[in-house]
Amino acid sequence: MANGKRITHIQTDYFLVPLAEQLGDARHGIHSHFELITVTIGLEDGSEGVGYTYTGGVGGRAVCQMIEHDLKPFLLGKDASCIEKHWEEMNWKIHYVGRGGIASFAISAIDIALWDLRGKSCDEPLWKLLGGHASSTKAYAGAIDLNFTKEKLLANIQGYMDKGFQAVKIKLGQERLAEDIERVAAVRELIGPDRTFMVDANMKWSVETSIKAAKLLAPHDIFWLEEPTIPDDYDGYRRIGAEGGLPIAAGENFHTVYEFVNMITRGKIDFPQPDASNIGGVTGWLKIANLAYAYNLPVCTHGMQELHVSLMSAMPNASYLEVHSFPIDQYTKRPLVIQDGRAVAPDVPGTGVEFRWELLQPYKQLF
Amino acid sequence: MANGKRITHIQTDYFLVPLAEQLGDARHGIHSHFELITVTIGLEDGSEGVGYTYTGGVGGRAVCQMIEHDLKPFLLGKDASCIEKHWEEMNWKIHYVGRGGIASFAISAIDIALWDLRGKSCDEPLWKLLGGHASSTKAYAGAIDLNFTKEKLLANIQGYMDKGFQAVKIKLGQERLAEDIERVAAVRELIGPDRTFMVDANMKWSVETSIKAAKLLAPHDIFWLEEPTIPDDYDGYRRIGAEGGLPIAAGENFHTVYEFVNMITRGKIDFPQPDASNIGGVTGWLKIANLAYAYNLPVCTHGMQELHVSLMSAMPNASYLEVHSFPIDQYTKRPLVIQDGRAVAPDVPGTGVEFRWELLQPYKQLF
Repeated sequence: MANGKRITHIQTDYFLVPLAEQLGDARHGIHSHFELITVTIGLEDGSEGVGYTYTGGVGGRAVCQMIEHDLKPFLLGKDASCIEKHWEEMNWKIHYVGRGGIASFAISAIDIALWDLRGKSCDEPLWKLLGGHASSTKAYAGAIDLNFTKEKLLANIQGYMDKGFQAVKIKLGQERLAEDIERVAAVRELIGPDRTFMVDANMKWSVETSIKAAKLLAPHDIFWLEEPTIPDDYDGYRRIGAEGGLPIAAGENFHTVYEFVNMITRGKIDFPQPDASNIGGVTGWLKIANLAYAYNLPVCTHGMQELHVSLMSAMPNASYLEVHSFPIDQYTKRPLVIQDGRAVAPDVPGTGVEFRWELLQPYKQLF
Repeated sequence: MANGKRITHIQTDYFLVPLAEQLGDARHGIHSHFELITVTIGLEDGSEGVGYTYTGGVGGRAVCQMIEHDLKPFLLGKDASCIEKHWEEMNWKIHYVGRGGIASFAISAIDIALWDLRGKSCDEPLWKLLGGHASSTKAYAGAIDLNFTKEKLLANIQGYMDKGFQAVKIKLGQERLAEDIERVAAVRELIGPDRTFMVDANMKWSVETSIKAAKLLAPHDIFWLEEPTIPDDYDGYRRIGAEGGLPIAAGENFHTVYEFVNMITRGKIDFPQPDASNIGGVTGWLKIANLAYAYNLPVCTHGMQELHVSLMSAMPNASYLEVHSFPIDQYTKRPLVIQDGRAVAPDVPGTGVEFRWELLQPYKQLF
C-alpha cells in the first residue's frame, strides 16, 4: 500500500435544501426541496476528499444509512488509490439489495470523494485527470418548468439567453398535447432558428403518444426528445426513435451500466445521459462515456453541473452539459462559470467542488 | 372510503438475527446473520396487518429509512383497501431513487402488511384469497452449503430426505468446476434417480463457463441450473439455456416486473423465481406469476417460505417452493409444515405469518 493512503475516516452528512420556488415536471410532481448527501473521506496522511449525491426530495436518508452501515465499515482501512477495485467490490457487497437505486446513489457519493482525493494527490484538476480533451464544454439550461405559465416560461428562457446560453430545454407533459406544442412554438419563436432546443417529457407518455408527439414536435427543430416513456421499455424507445423521427435522449433513470447497454443496443437512443450522482460516481460515468464512444454516440449529463462540467470537458465525445435547476453549485465556493455559452471546468486539484458548509448548515438534519 | 379502513399507524422494526452456523455461497460469501424488517400497519377500526422483508445482512437499515421517511408519510390516512393503487403510487414516489433494489424491499414489506389486512378483513387465508388452486405446494430444500465439506453436504441432504423432502438443491461455484461435478455426482448417488435435484451457481460463472458446466451437469439429471451468471445479461442467459442444454432458473435478483419481462422474453429462462420480499410484495409477486402463466411457464420462489407457501398453493402454474435456510419461520407461531414432501399453507385469515416477538426481541436494533 502506498504510504499514507489508508482510509481512516468517513463522515456522511444529510441536508434538506429548500428551492427558491416550487418546480414541477410531468412525473415527479412538484419539487419544494432537494436532498444533498455529502461524504467526506479522510486518509491517514491527513488529506481529505469530498463526494456527494442528491435526490429530488425522496430516499436520501436511505442513501445515508447504506453509506454508514453497509459501505463505510467495508472501506475503512483500505487503500484509497484502488478506486475501481472498491467500486466493483461495493457493487457486489450490496448486490442482492442493490443493483441500481439507492445503492448506486450511495456508491456514487463515495466514488466521487475518492476521485477528489486522487485529483488532489496528483495535483490535477478532474478535467485533465480524466482525459484533458478541453477545459470547457457546451452547455444548455433547463428548468423544471412544467408548472410555469407560458409568460413565465418565456421570461425564464429569456433569462437564460441573457446569461449567454445558446441552448435551452423545457419540460413537456401538459394535460393536452396541443398545449405542449404551443409552448414549444412560442419558445422556438423567442430563441430564433439558430439556438439549440431540447424537450423533456419525464416519462409521461405511452409509446403511441410519444410517436405522435415527436411528429408534432419535429417542425420546431428539436435537438432531442428526452425520456418520452418509462426507462424499462427498450422496444418502446426503439419504436419512438424510428417512428417518431426525432433523436431520443435518456439516462437519468439508468443506475447500472447494464441498463445503458440495453438502452443503447436495444432502445437505440441517440443521447445517453449518465448522471455521476446515480450511476456510480466518476467511475460509473466514465464507463458509460466510453460505452457511448464505442457505439459512436455522444455523452451527455443530468444534474450536478458543478461536477459534470469537468467530466464533459475531459471527453472527446461530449455533447451538451445540462445546467439543471437544483442549484447545488450555489452552495459551493465556485458556482458554475458560463463563458460564451460554454461551461468552464474548475482548474484546481480534485473535483473543484468545495462546499460552503456555513451556507448548508441551516439545512443539515440527522438521518 | 369504506368505514374503518383508514391507515392510522405504521411501525417499522429492525432485527439482526444470527444464523446457527456460518453459511456460504459463490457470490455473497459467508452469511452470519440475516436482517428482518417488519412493518405493522394499523387501521382506524383497530385491525392490524404485519408485513416484512429480509436481506442477507446488508441494506436493511436503508430499507427501514425508506419506509419511515419516504413511504409512511405518504400512506398515513389512506384507505388500506386500495392495495394496487398504493403499489403503483409508491413505485412512482420513489422512482428516481428506486426502480428495484432498496425501494422494492421497502414496498414489499408494506404491501405484504396490506394483504395481511385484506385477508383478515375478508376472513380468508391467503391461499384462498389469491386463487385457491390448492392448499399445499411442492417444495424443495436448499442450503447455503458451498462451504460445507462433502461429508457435511451429504449429511445435510440426508437430513432433508429424513424430513420427507423429495427435491433438494445445492450450491455450486467451487474454485474447481471438477469439484462441483464431484459433489453433484455424490448427491445424486445419495438421493437416487427419482428425487428432483436442482443446482445454484449464485452468478459465479461467465457465460462460457456456464455452458461448459451445464454440459457436465446434464448426465446427473439436473432439474434446473439457477443463476449461472449475472442477472443483467439477457443474451448470456439465452445462450446458456440453448447451448448448455439444461433448464435455467433465475429471479431472486430481479426487483421489477420489467426485469422479469426482459429475462423471460430475451433470456428465455424456464423457471422464473420471484421473491415477494423484493419484487414488491404479494402484488408484485402476482404480476410475475401471471406473466409466467401467459408465457406458458411455471412460477417458483426464493426465500420466505412461510409466506410463499400460500402464494404458491394459490397458483395453477406453481412449480417448486424453495425452503430456504434463513429460518424466518422459526420466529413465527407456525413454522413451515411439510407433509408428504409438500408444504402446507396456513389456514388462518391473512398471511398466517404471525411473529413471536418475544423470540425476536433480543435481536432488535435501532435503525
